[in-house]
Amino acid sequence: MSSKTNPARGMRDFLPADVRKRNYVINIIKEVYESYGFEPLETPAVENLETLMGKYGEEGNQLIFKILKRGEKLAQSAGSSPSERDESRILNELSDLALRYDLTVPLARVVANNKNELPKFFKRYQIQPVWRADRPARGRYREFYQCDVDAIGSTSMAVEGELISAVSVILKRLGFNDFVVRLNHRQVLADILDTAGVPSELHGDALVAIDKLDKIGPDGVASELATRGVSDKSATMLLEIFEHTQKIVSEGKDVNRTIVSNLINIVRDEVLTEIGQILRFAEGVPIQLDPSLARGLSYYTGAIIEVNVPDLPGSLAGGGRYDGLIGMFGKEQIPACGVSLGLERILVLMEERGMFPPEIAESIPADMMVTVWSEETIGESLKLANDLRGEGIRVIVYPQADKIDKQFKYAKQIGVPFYCELRETAGAFALKNMRTGERHELTAAAEVAAIVRQKDHKAEK
Amino acid sequence: MSSKTNPARGMRDFLPADVRKRNYVINIIKEVYESYGFEPLETPAVENLETLMGKYGEEGNQLIFKILKRGEKLAQSAGSSPSERDESRILNELSDLALRYDLTVPLARVVANNKNELPKFFKRYQIQPVWRADRPARGRYREFYQCDVDAIGSTSMAVEGELISAVSVILKRLGFNDFVVRLNHRQVLADILDTAGVPSELHGDALVAIDKLDKIGPDGVASELATRGVSDKSATMLLEIFEHTQKIVSEGKDVNRTIVSNLINIVRDEVLTEIGQILRFAEGVPIQLDPSLARGLSYYTGAIIEVNVPDLPGSLAGGGRYDGLIGMFGKEQIPACGVSLGLERILVLMEERGMFPPEIAESIPADMMVTVWSEETIGESLKLANDLRGEGIRVIVYPQADKIDKQFKYAKQIGVPFYCELRETAGAFALKNMRTGERHELTAAAEVAAIVRQKDHKAEK
Repeated sequence: MSSKTNPARGMRDFLPADVRKRNYVINIIKEVYESYGFEPLETPAVENLETLMGKYGEEGNQLIFKILKRGEKLAQSAGSSPSERDESRILNELSDLALRYDLTVPLARVVANNKNELPKFFKRYQIQPVWRADRPARGRYREFYQCDVDAIGSTSMAVEGELISAVSVILKRLGFNDFVVRLNHRQVLADILDTAGVPSELHGDALVAIDKLDKIGPDGVASELATRGVSDKSATMLLEIFEHTQKIVSEGKDVNRTIVSNLINIVRDEVLTEIGQILRFAEGVPIQLDPSLARGLSYYTGAIIEVNVPDLPGSLAGGGRYDGLIGMFGKEQIPACGVSLGLERILVLMEERGMFPPEIAESIPADMMVTVWSEETIGESLKLANDLRGEGIRVIVYPQADKIDKQFKYAKQIGVPFYCELRETAGAFALKNMRTGERHELTAAAEVAAIVRQKDHKAEK
Repeated sequence: MSSKTNPARGMRDFLPADVRKRNYVINIIKEVYESYGFEPLETPAVENLETLMGKYGEEGNQLIFKILKRGEKLAQSAGSSPSERDESRILNELSDLALRYDLTVPLARVVANNKNELPKFFKRYQIQPVWRADRPARGRYREFYQCDVDAIGSTSMAVEGELISAVSVILKRLGFNDFVVRLNHRQVLADILDTAGVPSELHGDALVAIDKLDKIGPDGVASELATRGVSDKSATMLLEIFEHTQKIVSEGKDVNRTIVSNLINIVRDEVLTEIGQILRFAEGVPIQLDPSLARGLSYYTGAIIEVNVPDLPGSLAGGGRYDGLIGMFGKEQIPACGVSLGLERILVLMEERGMFPPEIAESIPADMMVTVWSEETIGESLKLANDLRGEGIRVIVYPQADKIDKQFKYAKQIGVPFYCELRETAGAFALKNMRTGERHELTAAAEVAAIVRQKDHKAEK
């Protein structure tokens, strides 16, 4: 049993130092997406159960957190005989609501529900938590944030280009300089499978196997292909194609061009044209074609995108084009393409690599602390603090009369870069730079503000 | 039955225009709280059921959204005989988790759980949604945001002073200039009740009645006091005291001072000293003493605070000192004082009064839109857009080749203040100010950026 004061299993409290780091990353993500004209969307944490059930496969259904019916509704349901243990019946009798499981289904629902209010090309980003009743493990939580960005309504590769470019700008601004955007196209996979003689009803199975190439290697994939009913001949041909690509990558010269020219006889022209467009529209981004990239999701219809860094087994971001999904709640199909950033992984990596700027890494609660001389002069300390806030300085006032050495110790403990000691005489104070030890005897708030602003802790790093 | 694409009952989707307004208000709240050294805290949406049950009274227990157990756990529970309809047994058998109901219980849990990591004086703000299975009504939602700010660890009135001052700065920065902070003290109420001869075991009941003075008037309160067992003599005396205060307020001269001097014979000195300190420490804030303010909550131990504006029946913010609550999960009592801002009400009022700045009110998705001349030149449009983003301009690119008048119409529809038409000749474009109609023929991104930055839509208002 967990202690009574722990958060629920698989969930986390974010103390101020955590929130600062999370917000630092989230704010950069928002700023960049907004610079591309992506608009913010927020949906409720709670959805109708029927909105979510059946959208994430059988395993997904199990992992959805369901909410118990309330009051009378529950009494009625619980009064009938769930002892028959028909699971879906129990569920419908006891539950009518559920927690958001991802951000794509709510997006599809919102698009269907607001056809007339939303622009024809709806570019939205959404950064909100989702909940999954997964078994918690290292790095796997039951509440975690998704950062989705999707462009709806256009089939042009300009969309893919902008999405890749925006994700790349975000990662660069966060300080990543060793990421690679891997790019593939669902149709490349289909054409390769056709060429290798894999019958179309086995394409899905074959893709699941191919997707593991990185993890289990060619032999592993070969045996998995065999298990899944793909002939030896087809499997050998497939692996040859992918190994040839890897050889091109390892030679490292004109990689994308060479890969494309190798695919000319396998993949139909219009798909290669689309790939060429994406490469052109996302110019300047480190993109590498990877004809084996499948990302396990069957709903991709065009581009498939994944962003990797060398020291992370998983990906920092992933996505692609899914022209058949957004229409799930409506009558018409709506083209769409999107990318999801792995916020939790980005945070872990930035922590490991020490990538946060000093003020964030050190979790500084304010620019300075003002002391309190005595019970009678608390008002003077508060007044000075308010004057400084008026000058844009973030100020903590020690919240009660206390021995001055206790106040100084507290200032050191919370890590404020400046410490301002009020003297017995009204309007006299000593300002101390906690890093350099430099001291100033001052008499006006404006003087204090000038020094804090000028020689702030960042400038000294 | 609701349509399949609606959000769940009592919940809301926030489209981009809504999110912009909400974030505008939330960002100002955060900025001001941080200028006072309040630190951000976030807790999970989901808590252990036992953490929440019994903390909000019997009615609260009913309104908590409970989450169904998963998989095997559920099968075991549902297999036993909930048909016996013992409600709390059904609950424990079927549910182990629940949705956050407020931000105070999670704060108390976090404080108990992180005693050694948190500073002695923990000043935190928390802006997150909470969920209540209330019957939805106009302005009452099942998912809504709370904005709590609390200072933990000090009994000094400096805390009350800073909290009131911070809330006042926030409301002023949002544009409210007609709010009044009503202030009372739990001990003032207690001493008045003692003076009027209400026995202490009836204090709680009497406070519930007095709290309704604004709504049901003196006669209503008198009859409610009678129902609750307060003698006629005591009731008359109580109402005289409060009516006398209202007379002082209506005369409007030196109100707080006059009220205090009228309370000198009723309320003990140390309480009047505390009130005097709060008035002094929050200097400059429009505060009005109100000895009848009770806020219905039994857990207040000191100051009671409420912020009102004339055209709103409820309050914009409320709070007080509750020295007995934060210790609920630990062994020691921890002094605390906090205020909660009514975000949803603030938003409604700002909408009604037209208080949002133009860019927020008009929900502008970007500073400008760049057109696409043809399929072949999409790359040029994307390049220009990236150059402009590098200059800090937010740019939407029309996401596909299309007739130019359709592109112009789209720019008008989404409300971008500038429109940049790419010409057939590479590097030639026409920039149009959509408000003034002014046009410029330009050849460099820097020229475009300079005009957009200089004559931006805000400057023209």
